[in-house]
Amino acid sequence: MEEEKQLDSQKYAADINSIKEAQVRIAPYVHRTPVVSSTSLDSLSGKRLFFKCECFQKGGAFKIRGATNSIFSLEDEQAAKGVVTHSSGNHAAAVSLAAKLRGIPAYIVIPKNAPICKVENVKRYGGQVIWSDSTIQSRESVASKVQEETGAILIHPFNDKRTISGQGTVSLEFLEQIPEIDTIVVPISGGGLISGVTLAAKSINPAIRVFAAEPKGADDAARSKVAGRIIMLPKTNTIADGLRAFLGDLTWPVVRDLVEDIITVDDTEIVEAVKLCFEVLKVVVEPSGAVGLAAVLSDQFKQKRSWNEMKSIGIILSGGNVDLSVLWESLRSRSFVAAAV
Amino acid sequence: MEEEKQLDSQKYAADINSIKEAQVRIAPYVHRTPVVSSTSLDSLSGKRLFFKCECFQKGGAFKIRGATNSIFSLEDEQAAKGVVTHSSGNHAAAVSLAAKLRGIPAYIVIPKNAPICKVENVKRYGGQVIWSDSTIQSRESVASKVQEETGAILIHPFNDKRTISGQGTVSLEFLEQIPEIDTIVVPISGGGLISGVTLAAKSINPAIRVFAAEPKGADDAARSKVAGRIIMLPKTNTIADGLRAFLGDLTWPVVRDLVEDIITVDDTEIVEAVKLCFEVLKVVVEPSGAVGLAAVLSDQFKQKRSWNEMKSIGIILSGGNVDLSVLWESLRSRSFVAAAV
Repeated sequence: MEEEKQLDSQKYAADINSIKEAQVRIAPYVHRTPVVSSTSLDSLSGKRLFFKCECFQKGGAFKIRGATNSIFSLEDEQAAKGVVTHSSGNHAAAVSLAAKLRGIPAYIVIPKNAPICKVENVKRYGGQVIWSDSTIQSRESVASKVQEETGAILIHPFNDKRTISGQGTVSLEFLEQIPEIDTIVVPISGGGLISGVTLAAKSINPAIRVFAAEPKGADDAARSKVAGRIIMLPKTNTIADGLRAFLGDLTWPVVRDLVEDIITVDDTEIVEAVKLCFEVLKVVVEPSGAVGLAAVLSDQFKQKRSWNEMKSIGIILSGGNVDLSVLWESLRSRSFVAAAV
Repeated sequence: MEEEKQLDSQKYAADINSIKEAQVRIAPYVHRTPVVSSTSLDSLSGKRLFFKCECFQKGGAFKIRGATNSIFSLEDEQAAKGVVTHSSGNHAAAVSLAAKLRGIPAYIVIPKNAPICKVENVKRYGGQVIWSDSTIQSRESVASKVQEETGAILIHPFNDKRTISGQGTVSLEFLEQIPEIDTIVVPISGGGLISGVTLAAKSINPAIRVFAAEPKGADDAARSKVAGRIIMLPKTNTIADGLRAFLGDLTWPVVRDLVEDIITVDDTEIVEAVKLCFEVLKVVVEPSGAVGLAAVLSDQFKQKRSWNEMKSIGIILSGGNVDLSVLWESLRSRSFVAAAV
């Protein structure tokens, strides 16, 4: 391929410079999130585990990093017309918040079946909710209509250089906080987070391994990696509602070339990981955010050839926005907890 | 009183030196816990709030600080005979863990009605559970019997210089992390935490105000402060099961002289604070650990004369050990969350 002949820094959508620029740009608006650890979980996994708590990030997820980097990169004239997104969930809340910080309108197209707490987050941060049907076609067409009417610019949740560069700042911080990390495990959906994290980490230390963690019920990235091309699924079925997107043309090359492998886990493993986060780490994580821990505890991960070389594993807990009632039913329906008396 | 004529450093059970010594002694064994903040909670309170997350501490609560300081202060010969405590809950888990770290036996007298998750914590950390009835008489007599039979030394949960000095390290860290804090709000039970925290904070900056937060259903400290002497209650009734102890002769002088005031909150306010910690901070806090936030959000606190002078308030989230099923029922029975579909 022609791309292969170019320098690494030109081959992928972002690089260490765009990520460092993002870090400076977004610093006034985002939290430097803490890292927690637990000897109980170290014992359970047989490795030293470090958890980067992006659930404590503004908006409850890492998404504010990419959204802030994108929105604060806009020229004033463009910014004044506002921004739009048709991705529901944490990206929507992040775009609302970042737009509010810049003082511009945010139009958020949300499917009618979105979790209530995520809709509430959007409203709390001042986003204007515009409802669509749940199909991607409906969401895209409603968003296009908003763009035509307002001149607002679309802020893509993952397939965009500025978004990827913003998400990559997680890696910079994490490796500053815990320099001995030799392996990073990252939830994968559209691939924005893992692309930024991988490009930053590999630039700092090419020996660092990055694994993606993905629900079995939305295993498009795992299938893509095997097939050598982007695979989309006709439907997805997982409790990890934030991990149902498919890779884009800017994120796929990073996953294809630089991500070690994709570990897939089922919903039972994900819920068990959520429960460990609550009960052992004392951290509120949504199912999509806990998939990295689920992957590290899976048999599939232990069978990796590089398992014995891994000493210190960094796990990104990517978000914490969860309806307590939904979570509770997930835990109880799987008999992880006894019914309350 | 004769005491009044002595120097401050001789008047109270601990001082900045014993607390700094504790910090060095316990450093290899405890976490430096992170501080989190939330603009949503800042807006809600009208102040800048900083949350010291002792729920992420080893053993899930600040108690390991005092337990480690006490147990690692013992001479080898004494230590070899082991340690005993009749306080159930987080102190019991902390003593178990600290004893395990030193490689000595821990005998933990636990009343039969203790929460399951706290008993499990004790067992997980290798403590030997010895059951008693729920009365304090039964607990003390069982503990005395263990002491006689084994020669183990009692590790008091709060009324002890080494325990107080260990808990005071929370303050040292907190003020290193957030130097602009002008007010600290601390849960109060037996007074070990607030004594250490107050002595350290006042020594670093005498202008810092320290408030205690206490459940209305166990408001012995508030009554003591008004009466000018230690008041004990015939019974207590609160969801904050870790805050039912009464002040001791070593903790009372600090509360009497140096603690600004005691803010009391009812169980509904405590549960609402727990929910805010979960949903906004994404931190799992037990009811006893959330009472500081409940106090800061209460009308009683806003009516304090010094309210207008407070800018940056440090709140200690003191523990995170909670049965999810019990918590869920607390939330649901108070209609804070809709029943799951």
